[in-house]
Amino acid sequence: MTLKNLRKDNYPEWYQNVVAESEMAENSASPGCMVIKSWGYGMWERIRDIFDEKFKETDHENFYFPMFIPLSFFQKEADHVEGFAKEMAVVTHSRLENKNGKLSPASPLEEPLIVRPTSETIIADSFSKWIKSYRDLPVLVNQWANVVRWEMRPRLFLRTREFLWQEGHTAHSTAQEAEEETLKMLEVYRQVTEKYLAMPVLVGRKPEHEKFPGAVDTYCIEAMMQDGKALQAGTSHFLGQNFAKSANISFVNKNNQQEYAYTTSWGVSTRLIGGLIMNHADDEGMIVPPAIAPYQVVIVPLIKNETDTETIMAYVNELRDMLKGRMPLGDKIRIKVDKRDKKPVDKFWDWTKKGAPIIVEVGLRDIEGENLMVRERLKINTPEGKEVVKRSDFVANIEERLQNIQNQMFARAKSRMEQNIRTDITTKEQFAAYFANSNEWIEDGKQGKVAFVRGKWCADPATEEILKSMKITIRCIPFDQSNTTGECLLTGKPATMDVIYARSY
Amino acid sequence: MTLKNLRKDNYPEWYQNVVAESEMAENSASPGCMVIKSWGYGMWERIRDIFDEKFKETDHENFYFPMFIPLSFFQKEADHVEGFAKEMAVVTHSRLENKNGKLSPASPLEEPLIVRPTSETIIADSFSKWIKSYRDLPVLVNQWANVVRWEMRPRLFLRTREFLWQEGHTAHSTAQEAEEETLKMLEVYRQVTEKYLAMPVLVGRKPEHEKFPGAVDTYCIEAMMQDGKALQAGTSHFLGQNFAKSANISFVNKNNQQEYAYTTSWGVSTRLIGGLIMNHADDEGMIVPPAIAPYQVVIVPLIKNETDTETIMAYVNELRDMLKGRMPLGDKIRIKVDKRDKKPVDKFWDWTKKGAPIIVEVGLRDIEGENLMVRERLKINTPEGKEVVKRSDFVANIEERLQNIQNQMFARAKSRMEQNIRTDITTKEQFAAYFANSNEWIEDGKQGKVAFVRGKWCADPATEEILKSMKITIRCIPFDQSNTTGECLLTGKPATMDVIYARSY
Repeated sequence: MTLKNLRKDNYPEWYQNVVAESEMAENSASPGCMVIKSWGYGMWERIRDIFDEKFKETDHENFYFPMFIPLSFFQKEADHVEGFAKEMAVVTHSRLENKNGKLSPASPLEEPLIVRPTSETIIADSFSKWIKSYRDLPVLVNQWANVVRWEMRPRLFLRTREFLWQEGHTAHSTAQEAEEETLKMLEVYRQVTEKYLAMPVLVGRKPEHEKFPGAVDTYCIEAMMQDGKALQAGTSHFLGQNFAKSANISFVNKNNQQEYAYTTSWGVSTRLIGGLIMNHADDEGMIVPPAIAPYQVVIVPLIKNETDTETIMAYVNELRDMLKGRMPLGDKIRIKVDKRDKKPVDKFWDWTKKGAPIIVEVGLRDIEGENLMVRERLKINTPEGKEVVKRSDFVANIEERLQNIQNQMFARAKSRMEQNIRTDITTKEQFAAYFANSNEWIEDGKQGKVAFVRGKWCADPATEEILKSMKITIRCIPFDQSNTTGECLLTGKPATMDVIYARSY
Repeated sequence: MTLKNLRKDNYPEWYQNVVAESEMAENSASPGCMVIKSWGYGMWERIRDIFDEKFKETDHENFYFPMFIPLSFFQKEADHVEGFAKEMAVVTHSRLENKNGKLSPASPLEEPLIVRPTSETIIADSFSKWIKSYRDLPVLVNQWANVVRWEMRPRLFLRTREFLWQEGHTAHSTAQEAEEETLKMLEVYRQVTEKYLAMPVLVGRKPEHEKFPGAVDTYCIEAMMQDGKALQAGTSHFLGQNFAKSANISFVNKNNQQEYAYTTSWGVSTRLIGGLIMNHADDEGMIVPPAIAPYQVVIVPLIKNETDTETIMAYVNELRDMLKGRMPLGDKIRIKVDKRDKKPVDKFWDWTKKGAPIIVEVGLRDIEGENLMVRERLKINTPEGKEVVKRSDFVANIEERLQNIQNQMFARAKSRMEQNIRTDITTKEQFAAYFANSNEWIEDGKQGKVAFVRGKWCADPATEEILKSMKITIRCIPFDQSNTTGECLLTGKPATMDVIYARSY
């Protein structure tokens, strides 16, 4: 079955195939954990570097905290442990023992250790030691790390037992300052995700039942996948004084009174790469936004006779050197000359499946005409997808093209999202009829059968059960709430707010 | 007790104090694990970025492999498990259960998982799937990750249960190519450690009993600390076909025969930061080589009256902007304006203890004279340690100074090392008398009581016990072996080679 039919008929299987054929990641012998391969890891490096720069610009500093958290730390915050206890990797022994050739765990620990599912508790412990006075605040910390949540239905990038992420943790002297921080970092998430990942998002607050365990408020960025399902792409939590109280993060304020600090936490993970795939990939495989692509331009020499190798490689290396050091998207261009011992056509398909934004092909005839062939991944299978470019126009052509591709990828995804947020569903019955359909791939430029509904909600806690039974979730409560009168799409009762309803990953 | 007396009288305690006062790291509530604070982590980021660039230049690609390794994988390579079984964190459960308010591990795993102490076994498993033909070789992989070894006597940076490192893993079609790779990466280690960390090293091969568990040959870079002890700063292993056989990494060679691949692995870790401290720190605290310093230049405004704030900050910001984007050591200069609400003298001592290479002070009087004060950490307490510099000379002065500091730090450490490799010890008795002394701090420009001995060895395996009883180790077998005749310093028997003897961390 081709990827094209798969995308339409079996979106989950299409996703798996794209991940495999683009060589971004694969399952490993370690159950539920993935091997991130260089093409996928290269994207993560770019995502990391971009976020890292923004975090530093907003005065955060990188620290590294232990991966092992003493079990007793989870005893301190009841909601927090409630949320994570079901999916924790527990270290109980510190040695292996060889008995008749069979290895088994030995030297049990006095206190079991939890491999961090998130680090609020252990970082709060450090904060409690560092923070004594209002002069010590704010504390603005970030960490790049691996975390573990024992997923029972793992999926590459979307849900793996171990994943990579960043977690910001801050402490402040007032609730207002902490809330401002929470929203500031949410805005950083929105900007980076839209500008660099070309992935449009909705922003808002989570309803009570979708909050981070232990948070006062959770804010999120939510993206729409090509099948109309939602992907939570990043969250930012205002933790109030909850963790400060359980870990005793207290300080002497300006009035010489002892007070608990206000903390926040916020994170994005390798899950973003799953979002990238489900936003941008097509029937031929992955398409990577230039700003994130490990290589933005791949040059493939078309060598038919070995005797031409020297001529062609000299020309290819010149082209590479012409681009070197150019900064079409704000950072140094990333170029690869594919010198592998492989047929050019196979190289072309390799890079197409990986989704390198631009492939440049150079054969003897191109050299004679002082030309080269530029092929654009986003426009593959269209007449505009390939163009003969003069050598003298090469640099300008590539620079402009990369910028255009980045813009077009965002515009395409944004138009798809906007077209697929239904706002005309106003009754419980319409809502049920709409979600009676199942999700399927949404063709570009068309409206899909099922995607997001922006509609009314009564905010009754009892609606959580209705949502569960319908397998629908409230993705967020958007910040703009103009006219909220109407009937709750779940209960028919008078509504108090607009929310985004969707099926989700 | 001052740091000065401590360095002389109690070198280990001096080390702890330097780590604490420079705010590089601290112990955590997680037993044996450390919190790496921003000043220490910033050095690690620099070290990572420099090595990463060199690895990519030598055609390696970054991957990420699972942190959890199935226990059975360690059953496959006998020497390997023998070497690591005593210090492994073992995950046995995947959930916590709340029984009457008490949390305990639940849902035991079918097969326990080991938190990677190193990743040869799990990476070999991936290699065995990827490698089918000689055309798939070489495979050149690197990973940046955390690893766990259950140290019983943890020390910040030097031995912590969890630490950060990089591990390179490669597979080749011939033994010769794999051996070349092993030595190539050893040379990368030597160059980066000497050029950027300003830490001179000796290179060589490990004796049989000091090899990596499972290796055919282990090569290393060894540094000398200020107390004359050795620190293994990086290792590179030729693994032969050992792991290829146990994990079945086999390929069809050019002659159409099935063959096992030859693999290598090589790593450096956050331990390097411990080495930096014991190479460069002094009686006032840490001194960071400019190439590694998170901030190379810290500007401290000397504001006596609040009314001068605007004037002084305007001048300070101009100075910062003059430096911005300059690349005195090949990458963008790192500058910090210290705006904290703190007395200037306290700021000066903070940055002195942290070891920022240059502190620039600016007060009203400096501005009137179009000057500024440059203070050099390396020359603190000497007349050359501070200099009034004209604003017009500022950029050139700083650029030249940073380069000089980098060179001087390496020269100082190199001269200390060279002065303290004794080559005049030729008998068993002299050797025993020399090591009857204990290690202590070596004053610059002098020869210490105990440090390294380059001397003869008979290579008899029985000497391992003699070394243990004397608490001495063979650090390496240097590559240059000109005249190896003489008497073994351990047994008195005829020697076969020169080795480096030392006490070690």
